Amino acid sequence: MSIENIKDKFLKGEIKAYELEDIIFRDVHKCKKEDWGNACKDASVLRIDFLEQKLGKKFNHIRKHYDDFCSIDKKTTAIEQIIGGAVVPLGFGGPLKIKGNHAIGEFYIPLANCEAALIAGFNRGCNVINESGGVRSIVTKDSMTRSVIIETPSIDDAFKLCEEVNKKGELYDEMKKAAEREGKVSKLVDIQTFQILNEIQLRYVFQTGDSMGMNSATKYAANAVKVLLEKYPEMKLKALSGNMCADKKSTHINVIFGRGKSVQTEVIIPLEVLKKNYQLMNENGEIIKEIEPRDIERINYSKNYQGSALAGTLTGFNANVANTIAAIFAATGQDLAQIVESSSAFDKAEVLKNGSLRFGVFLPCVEIGTVGGGTSYATAKECLDMLGCYGAGKKPGENAKKFAEIIGAAVTAQEINLLGTLACGDELASSHIRLARGK
Amino acid sequence: MSIENIKDKFLKGEIKAYELEDIIFRDVHKCKKEDWGNACKDASVLRIDFLEQKLGKKFNHIRKHYDDFCSIDKKTTAIEQIIGGAVVPLGFGGPLKIKGNHAIGEFYIPLANCEAALIAGFNRGCNVINESGGVRSIVTKDSMTRSVIIETPSIDDAFKLCEEVNKKGELYDEMKKAAEREGKVSKLVDIQTFQILNEIQLRYVFQTGDSMGMNSATKYAANAVKVLLEKYPEMKLKALSGNMCADKKSTHINVIFGRGKSVQTEVIIPLEVLKKNYQLMNENGEIIKEIEPRDIERINYSKNYQGSALAGTLTGFNANVANTIAAIFAATGQDLAQIVESSSAFDKAEVLKNGSLRFGVFLPCVEIGTVGGGTSYATAKECLDMLGCYGAGKKPGENAKKFAEIIGAAVTAQEINLLGTLACGDELASSHIRLARGK
Amino acid sequence: MSIENIKDKFLKGEIKAYELEDIIFRDVHKCKKEDWGNACKDASVLRIDFLEQKLGKKFNHIRKHYDDFCSIDKKTTAIEQIIGGAVVPLGFGGPLKIKGNHAIGEFYIPLANCEAALIAGFNRGCNVINESGGVRSIVTKDSMTRSVIIETPSIDDAFKLCEEVNKKGELYDEMKKAAEREGKVSKLVDIQTFQILNEIQLRYVFQTGDSMGMNSATKYAANAVKVLLEKYPEMKLKALSGNMCADKKSTHINVIFGRGKSVQTEVIIPLEVLKKNYQLMNENGEIIKEIEPRDIERINYSKNYQGSALAGTLTGFNANVANTIAAIFAATGQDLAQIVESSSAFDKAEVLKNGSLRFGVFLPCVEIGTVGGGTSYATAKECLDMLGCYGAGKKPGENAKKFAEIIGAAVTAQEINLLGTLACGDELASSHIRLARGK
Amino acid sequence: MSIENIKDKFLKGEIKAYELEDIIFRDVHKCKKEDWGNACKDASVLRIDFLEQKLGKKFNHIRKHYDDFCSIDKKTTAIEQIIGGAVVPLGFGGPLKIKGNHAIGEFYIPLANCEAALIAGFNRGCNVINESGGVRSIVTKDSMTRSVIIETPSIDDAFKLCEEVNKKGELYDEMKKAAEREGKVSKLVDIQTFQILNEIQLRYVFQTGDSMGMNSATKYAANAVKVLLEKYPEMKLKALSGNMCADKKSTHINVIFGRGKSVQTEVIIPLEVLKKNYQLMNENGEIIKEIEPRDIERINYSKNYQGSALAGTLTGFNANVANTIAAIFAATGQDLAQIVESSSAFDKAEVLKNGSLRFGVFLPCVEIGTVGGGTSYATAKECLDMLGCYGAGKKPGENAKKFAEIIGAAVTAQEINLLGTLACGDELASSHIRLARGK
Repeated sequence: MSIENIKDKFLKGEIKAYELEDIIFRDVHKCKKEDWGNACKDASVLRIDFLEQKLGKKFNHIRKHYDDFCSIDKKTTAIEQIIGGAVVPLGFGGPLKIKGNHAIGEFYIPLANCEAALIAGFNRGCNVINESGGVRSIVTKDSMTRSVIIETPSIDDAFKLCEEVNKKGELYDEMKKAAEREGKVSKLVDIQTFQILNEIQLRYVFQTGDSMGMNSATKYAANAVKVLLEKYPEMKLKALSGNMCADKKSTHINVIFGRGKSVQTEVIIPLEVLKKNYQLMNENGEIIKEIEPRDIERINYSKNYQGSALAGTLTGFNANVANTIAAIFAATGQDLAQIVESSSAFDKAEVLKNGSLRFGVFLPCVEIGTVGGGTSYATAKECLDMLGCYGAGKKPGENAKKFAEIIGAAVTAQEINLLGTLACGDELASSHIRLARGK
Repeated sequence: MSIENIKDKFLKGEIKAYELEDIIFRDVHKCKKEDWGNACKDASVLRIDFLEQKLGKKFNHIRKHYDDFCSIDKKTTAIEQIIGGAVVPLGFGGPLKIKGNHAIGEFYIPLANCEAALIAGFNRGCNVINESGGVRSIVTKDSMTRSVIIETPSIDDAFKLCEEVNKKGELYDEMKKAAEREGKVSKLVDIQTFQILNEIQLRYVFQTGDSMGMNSATKYAANAVKVLLEKYPEMKLKALSGNMCADKKSTHINVIFGRGKSVQTEVIIPLEVLKKNYQLMNENGEIIKEIEPRDIERINYSKNYQGSALAGTLTGFNANVANTIAAIFAATGQDLAQIVESSSAFDKAEVLKNGSLRFGVFLPCVEIGTVGGGTSYATAKECLDMLGCYGAGKKPGENAKKFAEIIGAAVTAQEINLLGTLACGDELASSHIRLARGK
Repeated sequence: MSIENIKDKFLKGEIKAYELEDIIFRDVHKCKKEDWGNACKDASVLRIDFLEQKLGKKFNHIRKHYDDFCSIDKKTTAIEQIIGGAVVPLGFGGPLKIKGNHAIGEFYIPLANCEAALIAGFNRGCNVINESGGVRSIVTKDSMTRSVIIETPSIDDAFKLCEEVNKKGELYDEMKKAAEREGKVSKLVDIQTFQILNEIQLRYVFQTGDSMGMNSATKYAANAVKVLLEKYPEMKLKALSGNMCADKKSTHINVIFGRGKSVQTEVIIPLEVLKKNYQLMNENGEIIKEIEPRDIERINYSKNYQGSALAGTLTGFNANVANTIAAIFAATGQDLAQIVESSSAFDKAEVLKNGSLRFGVFLPCVEIGTVGGGTSYATAKECLDMLGCYGAGKKPGENAKKFAEIIGAAVTAQEINLLGTLACGDELASSHIRLARGK
Repeated sequence: MSIENIKDKFLKGEIKAYELEDIIFRDVHKCKKEDWGNACKDASVLRIDFLEQKLGKKFNHIRKHYDDFCSIDKKTTAIEQIIGGAVVPLGFGGPLKIKGNHAIGEFYIPLANCEAALIAGFNRGCNVINESGGVRSIVTKDSMTRSVIIETPSIDDAFKLCEEVNKKGELYDEMKKAAEREGKVSKLVDIQTFQILNEIQLRYVFQTGDSMGMNSATKYAANAVKVLLEKYPEMKLKALSGNMCADKKSTHINVIFGRGKSVQTEVIIPLEVLKKNYQLMNENGEIIKEIEPRDIERINYSKNYQGSALAGTLTGFNANVANTIAAIFAATGQDLAQIVESSSAFDKAEVLKNGSLRFGVFLPCVEIGTVGGGTSYATAKECLDMLGCYGAGKKPGENAKKFAEIIGAAVTAQEINLLGTLACGDELASSHIRLARGK
């Protein structure tokens, strides 16, 4: 078939949208390996043509932003039924001085977002941090999990199975072996057990190098659980994911155990640095308000703890961590649905005896990768490259940890700035308005 | 100055990154109104040049995806320090038959994401729904909020102020008037009061037409609170946002009161439709497993409720709502940080006496807009257009409600598919692997 | 039958344990009204005899503590199958200076508990408060609730029913009338609606005077819901209690809306008062540590907010409120199962500019009564009498509010003491040990 | 001094309330060891006299219920400032057939409470269970915890200290040794570490035999932490209890790890047993409604999970577990403040293929003891004796586990009954009313 024939059949519904790549590759490009990318592009064009015709509209920008979203080696595409790209405005903030174990030096942070004032505020936070000598940022835990529901005949069977797994004997070893069979760098580091009556959840815990690891963890957990099911035919797999993982939900279990990277940050901000950066001026340029460390300390208490406690949250003891997480995730090809739990954060602000402010953020579950997922697509790759952490690290996991440290540092800049701004008074509103686009 | 001079000064640090637009517009384009867009583009190029030089790297794709992220009328840019665009692969799913109050008919849903198998699964969910006659999707609440902390001298003052606001007398009216002063379509519909000792939080509740409304709500709340502070000089504004809003955090208060749009969906799936769509076959193509409504019902119980309860969540009683929310938000220029709370969801699955499955999703706080924010940028606009809900509705709020109904319906397709897939056995793992890109 | 015959038949199983009162009253006491109490006592003795014989053990103390747990007028007993009384050691603390709206003056607080050091610590807290001029304690909300699940045919029916109730028209009025029919002082003050797909929960909100009101609320809600079910035969009562009440569970909904009495307290503690009361001495009686307001402030932050946030709680942002709640509830005949939610509490500690400590506790849902329930039993009645708030107030609800203010004040004494003690160092352990009974 | 002199001085305020025992013992009883009990009794009488005189009221019942609340060997009293006893009406329910590992056979359950209908309902639940062959009840975890806050100089110090503890080397061993020094049966079984920035919480986990163990855990943790503080002088003890224990608060951490005893129960209820026990009759005695296992299953879903999820809870996925916990705790001398977290419970109801109902309750943190605390006081001791589990078990911990199994079984009876009753319709209201005392 020619491309015209294919289009014709497709528009008539005789070819399905998801079949286009394979048919075009076979019929138009004669299965020439180097043409797989062209076949994908052609398929994308046919689909956008179809939508335009069907809906009587034009989608010129979408089609314009098609990047090479396909893999020649594996003859796959990024996702199914691609029609192009969704573009999020991309700016940058910084430089931000980071003192991590892996991220050391000054960094420019790519931030994809649509919120006027976000980057301006970020930059003010960077100033505060830089003038304080930089922010310490460290990864304290590293793991990826999948929790599987096993249904057993009785509470006794469930209990015995937990005991069996917990003693880390033969069953554990065989499951570990099966789990790690296909993984090059991934390791099973624990299997946590949770019994609820005749069901148990086995929460498989992996370290997956520089990849975010959710897909690997799923696959490896499936392999591990097969060993168990073969050995105990009376046990039944109820669901390969039982929501104790917990993926893409705000949960306390991720706070307790961590998931992805747990990051902790710290910066000691001298009184003068704070004062200088958060002054409120009147129209004559006269300073009418300066903030002090104590103001930040009390707003952290009233808003981030007391307010959040009254709002009813398990993960949101912070000012606005999600903004920074979302902007970096969108820039770097991370799984955007994981913004949900990766934004879990606990701020701390404490005035020290010398008058300085100790400030830091605890992020228990930042789920990120520098290989796999969307990290290798054109702009994502460049953004990771901008941070010096695209791809696999020299040691497995090194790049992902560096990336996590950068995220922790960036979040810290944004948090200190928002708290400082709130302490200044009603500036939150006015800064938003002043900078907003409002086309 | 010529553009070369400006670049030179910028690279030397004599011009700041954020000043570029204005200087170029003034010096290079001589303040010609129609050249504002070119000035912005020039500024973006200089910044990306700067980053390339500074870091010794190339960012060709980022610069390639610059869209016209500026507004000529207001001489503003989307965000500060733009360097181009971050591209997320964009596919589409559907058609999905929706029976809403505003969204009526078959829809193609744009989904921006990096997760192989997501759209394939979505389409299977659409099949299930379409073969069941479509999904009902309605908006049951509509509001946007900002909660402000007021510090009062004592618990008695705080109590009296709450009483004063609650009685909806003069103070309330004056605050309402101030709040609505600048809004064209926005209305203040309530002020909720929460006392914690000598502090109170005033949670201003607005309806903001077709815009998501967070920025407006902030501005209007600031105006309202000024009235209060002038009237009661002993009261003090502690923070313009007190985390009981609650913005970009997973909270129970948003479940109770709703925020953005509350959406409820419902589809009655006949036994045969379910069976047909979720069969597990062996290598010979023989059916080895068919699922039944009861399987979905029990997985919804074990995973979405029992599992989530044990995981410790307030908002995550669902399988994977965040995936769909994130994919639609990224496609349509929504605030990606609001994926956090917009993903709050409660699934329900119940086998009816006739053997069918009643399935639905309750989304208490989907925070979306069809005007403002990132909705007018090139690809976002086209994606909203694809859904027939770009811009302001004929009646204020109509388009946003239509969009919310579509989101509810799309989420329902994805949820029913994931639960069906899990019920089939270990397919979650294998489908991920089969379709993954793995460049 | 004689009492011997009855005993004989009872031991043989021919008479059931719960039938004893009626049979003895009829056969032995010939239905003489004034002998109902004796019949109850006789029945109680037979039951304890039965248990002793059955188990081969002696229960002399239990039988000794039989109080007159029966009502002659209504021929009822406190609970079914009474065998006597369970005795909890009862001490008292105070005097505690309270500045409430109803509780004004110095109070001795009855505290029933088994925890050595609790009263000693309580008294130290009273000292701190008294030396600071007393504690302000006020009731800010008053309500009792029952939430009923109604199942409707569809999400649209559920939505319409919510709208119907919310508009407070005819249906609301009729339900209100039915609810209040049998109540003398109880008033229906609101019906809150919560939709989850095709179910709704109607949360009936009552004010019930001086009684705790849970039983009344249940009965009145049942009456109200009958009106609805008759009017809308397609609606179905799924459960008369749907857990959004929320009774005897720790929930955030009770924090948001209050249940029972919401109490707020406040005391300004001068620096010197704090120092004097919390000194750590070495064996020579030399002061080795004095605490300052700042210590309390920081422990409140690190323990009550940061620690509790990490522990995963919605209601437990305090040091040990449950101790005081339990001790007063046990002394005064309250429903001990309601200790669960009545212990919900949020502490606040803030150093003021003058160096004093502002300290207070917010208790959103203290569920108590001074009439009904166990309040009229012998020791309970005396304990309420000790506080000057037994029985119905002159104005309905006045006594219950007075009682709630006392509880708030007592909790405040206990909290400030525990935080002060913790700030002193490891005294928590040693004070427990020094005073423990350890028979 | 004579007793009259002492009374005189006490009433004048020259002797403090808490000093009475010692002075009377010394002056009146001349320190004769066997008279310690009399001295205590005398002191109690003087105090009640004082209160009567001070308040102008009579407290005859309180004084009447004085039991021998003192220990001769250690010259201590149960609590400070005893004036007598608070009596809670005590009934019993059962027999209940329990199939535990330690509790095997039929049990009569002592229930101290003030709620009419509670025991009647409990008995109906026992019938259901007995007719189903009894309930399986097992303890799956056993531990008591105290979590201590250590403040360190920096996030790095905090991280290193966590690592040091986690590696279970020398520091761990020395702390374990110090912790166990004074304990006869108690063992330190784990030290969990939680870092939040520059603070860490060390959650010491003990097994404490048959005692509830909170006081021991505190003392032992204090001893352990002293080792650490001596070794690392730069670390600072911030609070000996940091709310991650978590004692007397409803928390998710206790659900995840358990505290006290974790109990799981299971009963398979045949269709006919359920039908027979939950019939609704009209006034002519005709059956108008019978319930089926499916009704229980759906109410468990709509009320205990969906309703509780919407109410915002972490621990209350059950119908009314607190009632039973409170009634048994009050009867048996447990710490009544621990009703708060001991009531955490997750019900499960599932219709099996043969039409029976699998029903069970998971109680993650039942904190109880059979020695120590209030267990040895007169009526408490007899109630424990009634259950055959007073005092230390033959093997340490055996009696406490037996007791926990009984509690789990009793809770199960109460839960199945409440769900069955709710399924019958509006009986909750009417049964309460029919049986209520209403003096």
